[in-house]
Amino acid sequence: MPHININNSQEPGVIPGKGPLSVETGKKGGKSSGRTHAISPTRQEDYAEWYQQVIKEADLAETSPVRGCMVIKPWGYGLWENIQQALDRMFKETGHENAYFPLFIPLSFFEKEARHVAGFAKECAVVTHRRLEVGEDGALRPAGELEEPMIVRPTSETIIGAMFAKWIQSYRDLPVLINQWANVVRWEMRTRLFLRTSEFLWQEGHTAHATDLEAREETMRMLDTYERFAHEYMAMPVIKGEKCSWERFPGAVNTYSIEAMMQDRKALQAGTSHFLGQNFARTSDIRFQRKEGGEEYAWTTSWGVSTRLIGALIMTHSDDDGFVLPPRLAPRHVVILPVYRGDQDRTRVLEYCQGLASELRAQHYGDGRVSVEIDDRDIRGGGKAWHHVKRGTPLRLEIGPRDIDSGLIPVARRDRPAGTREPVARAELVARVAEILQDMQRGLFERARAFRDANTREITTRKDFEAWFGSGNNEENRIHRGFVVSPFVDDVAIMDALAPLNVSVRCLPLDQEPRAGTCFFTGRPTNRWAVFAKAY
Amino acid sequence: MPHININNSQEPGVIPGKGPLSVETGKKGGKSSGRTHAISPTRQEDYAEWYQQVIKEADLAETSPVRGCMVIKPWGYGLWENIQQALDRMFKETGHENAYFPLFIPLSFFEKEARHVAGFAKECAVVTHRRLEVGEDGALRPAGELEEPMIVRPTSETIIGAMFAKWIQSYRDLPVLINQWANVVRWEMRTRLFLRTSEFLWQEGHTAHATDLEAREETMRMLDTYERFAHEYMAMPVIKGEKCSWERFPGAVNTYSIEAMMQDRKALQAGTSHFLGQNFARTSDIRFQRKEGGEEYAWTTSWGVSTRLIGALIMTHSDDDGFVLPPRLAPRHVVILPVYRGDQDRTRVLEYCQGLASELRAQHYGDGRVSVEIDDRDIRGGGKAWHHVKRGTPLRLEIGPRDIDSGLIPVARRDRPAGTREPVARAELVARVAEILQDMQRGLFERARAFRDANTREITTRKDFEAWFGSGNNEENRIHRGFVVSPFVDDVAIMDALAPLNVSVRCLPLDQEPRAGTCFFTGRPTNRWAVFAKAY
Repeated sequence: MPHININNSQEPGVIPGKGPLSVETGKKGGKSSGRTHAISPTRQEDYAEWYQQVIKEADLAETSPVRGCMVIKPWGYGLWENIQQALDRMFKETGHENAYFPLFIPLSFFEKEARHVAGFAKECAVVTHRRLEVGEDGALRPAGELEEPMIVRPTSETIIGAMFAKWIQSYRDLPVLINQWANVVRWEMRTRLFLRTSEFLWQEGHTAHATDLEAREETMRMLDTYERFAHEYMAMPVIKGEKCSWERFPGAVNTYSIEAMMQDRKALQAGTSHFLGQNFARTSDIRFQRKEGGEEYAWTTSWGVSTRLIGALIMTHSDDDGFVLPPRLAPRHVVILPVYRGDQDRTRVLEYCQGLASELRAQHYGDGRVSVEIDDRDIRGGGKAWHHVKRGTPLRLEIGPRDIDSGLIPVARRDRPAGTREPVARAELVARVAEILQDMQRGLFERARAFRDANTREITTRKDFEAWFGSGNNEENRIHRGFVVSPFVDDVAIMDALAPLNVSVRCLPLDQEPRAGTCFFTGRPTNRWAVFAKAY
Repeated sequence: MPHININNSQEPGVIPGKGPLSVETGKKGGKSSGRTHAISPTRQEDYAEWYQQVIKEADLAETSPVRGCMVIKPWGYGLWENIQQALDRMFKETGHENAYFPLFIPLSFFEKEARHVAGFAKECAVVTHRRLEVGEDGALRPAGELEEPMIVRPTSETIIGAMFAKWIQSYRDLPVLINQWANVVRWEMRTRLFLRTSEFLWQEGHTAHATDLEAREETMRMLDTYERFAHEYMAMPVIKGEKCSWERFPGAVNTYSIEAMMQDRKALQAGTSHFLGQNFARTSDIRFQRKEGGEEYAWTTSWGVSTRLIGALIMTHSDDDGFVLPPRLAPRHVVILPVYRGDQDRTRVLEYCQGLASELRAQHYGDGRVSVEIDDRDIRGGGKAWHHVKRGTPLRLEIGPRDIDSGLIPVARRDRPAGTREPVARAELVARVAEILQDMQRGLFERARAFRDANTREITTRKDFEAWFGSGNNEENRIHRGFVVSPFVDDVAIMDALAPLNVSVRCLPLDQEPRAGTCFFTGRPTNRWAVFAKAY
């Protein structure tokens, strides 16, 4: 199991940033072990509430007057735009094109599925009328009932399938490599910002191929793309693996995912890639003339990630002072805070800051340039600095007349304790800014990986397994114990054994060497191991 | 009236590309004046059907199994992505940030409007249920009726207003400069791809300001942004003007638009910018503490463009051979078609084409690099070349062994007759490719402007006005006579006089000098002139 390091010592892993990242003089906030933090409560005190507070204080999103739907605010949306751009570039580099399909799906498109799936019940938004009228009582009411209700897409699979069936006639039309960026709706009763909302934003890739092999290669290519994105952009270590039979997407031959450990040590599935064989083509009637003659069903795949990634990002890196942004995805890399008293100081300091900003903006970082904001709002210094700490801006430069005189700029890195400032000569800062950002990016990844590894155990007995996961609760407000790696046999009986523990099989890691073991649920020998965890 | 040239001669203006742009040897298509064209029918034969055929043959979009909703195919969506990127950059350069608001609007948000608007009836999609269940007959049916129905946003105004009211407390919070890229739905019974579909994609800008003046400046800044985008990117000349009172957006103090002439000489409103005064803030309760003390309603604006722009683009530049793309928005600038027979030729030609493509791709054009496709699909040459003519790719290079030997590459420009090829030495082509593209861009704009000017008349009598617009029909399949510029008085009686002619006041151009005239509808003197036209 080369890609997952396992900590079999007795010491639990520490939460990243706990202790060293605590703050000495927070303006407000919770207390924990004698220190004050900008976010209250802390992760230890109430993890679920900490998560909500990080989002609120970072101004990422908020709930709306529309049940279950969120408003993504500019700072959160800027992050999503960066996620989109990076992924979109990767999709295009691997030959995919974007397209757009209708928001609505006719009810009849769901009926085939309903006939095949026992206990079918879709939590989704159903459109039944096409106008509003003023009733006799003066109130508005739906009018113009539709002959056939329409569903707001929970996914575009069926409609894309219908179009593929039209577009694909011959092997010459293959492969078809389509991606869509869209909003989708799945009715949720209990929602949490970014993690589970009724409406969310996502991308869904749908591809059709002439051969089994090509489609399998595509499935793995996109899984690898997601892994690379998580590692290089999100600085979030993920385990790439295959889902077991009962966690598979309905209709898929194989489902693969990337799984990440959050700071409450639960797993979050951050992206999936499905090999659908010819099942989906059969349902949607996607057939093609083969080069060798004869007709065949196409081989298809689908793959997707959503705004859930933002939830994953928050829970991977943030600390008790708020959001921590990996520089590769930060809407802004550097914020400059001019510090002055009189009008004369003001002109001098502002000019200096503008000059510095221009020089920094000329530097390359990641896929573009270094992005710099000067925050000259009329707010007293302390509150302003904390504002940017909580928003997670990677570098903070508070510059006053004395700094200008000394030629040394105090650099505050968001990955270091909030009070820490390292003086760097102006020219050196400009020359090294990209290097500093990349050092932070690497550091965040390493810290998250160390945390995951420290909280992953190899367990080979059922007793240890049950002791590890404790009672069956899966409370959102507390820190759990982490991942378990155990021998695995794909037998649905295990699902029943796991249910009372509130634990699931996350995946069978792809990067594992066969190793003999015994599945302690079934007592059967195996050479494959799986990752188990409580999960989002 | 310095920005609109008017043709008062007896000759009607010619359709761009008619005659000189016709094709000598189309593979299929309509005939007109003895020539064969790739698109059948031609513009003259049936304008509305020509429009549909251009979209179909260019693979831009198609109707879907979902009533009134379109599928935007990769070539059309690539164009939309380029439109989005260019506008988004302009929005950000003028200080705007993107955000995302819920797809659904609670019914109650519409009730205030319904109370104020007589004969209120909204053609919109109404969500009334939140799940699907299998009935006893095995069929699916909506279940879980909502207490309050939700409307799929026809615009996000009301929900954004509710959030602004929450976000804005003090002058320090202003201005708020928000834009959203989103899908919206307005139920349409008769749809046309890109021009009028039930679901469409758009951007809606919503801003709030501390003063009347600031909000007015914002309104004009965004109108200017739209004009610049239309001129520089779409190569589409527009008239920037103010709407008359009865064409104003409900609730707006002033509505401005950009208006373009299509090739059937009808007007198409391509973008709007509204100054809402304090009306909208009053409805949504957006108040702020003033710097000088006291509370005040915010001053707001809104502005938007949609996928309708693609319809405008098609009808501005395309000819009887298909779509013509302005290079600044083309998903691909250059297509290289390798021409060879044997395998030996194949290797040599392909290597040459790949080398040339690399060199071309290294050249800067517009906001990025020159984008090049090599189309080596297994289709005989003629069909392939026509495929790219109909898609509107600006430059087409068909390269065979003889061209390699001669060192001269035959360059086919989409803005010249389809049979024309100009031989250009390889090094010169690489060096000049951006210049050639920009020359095409300029040429398309000039041609469209000349067409508009040639089909715009100054008219000062009602008799001439009625003769110009003819009977009251507004058929979609024929070419109309064009724009009229006449003296104008803002009196709603004119609306009634125009209705039987199927003509509307498009705008009062902003770039006009006061000039005395008499409104021939009211008989009143005025010094303002307006543009009248049949319109989309």
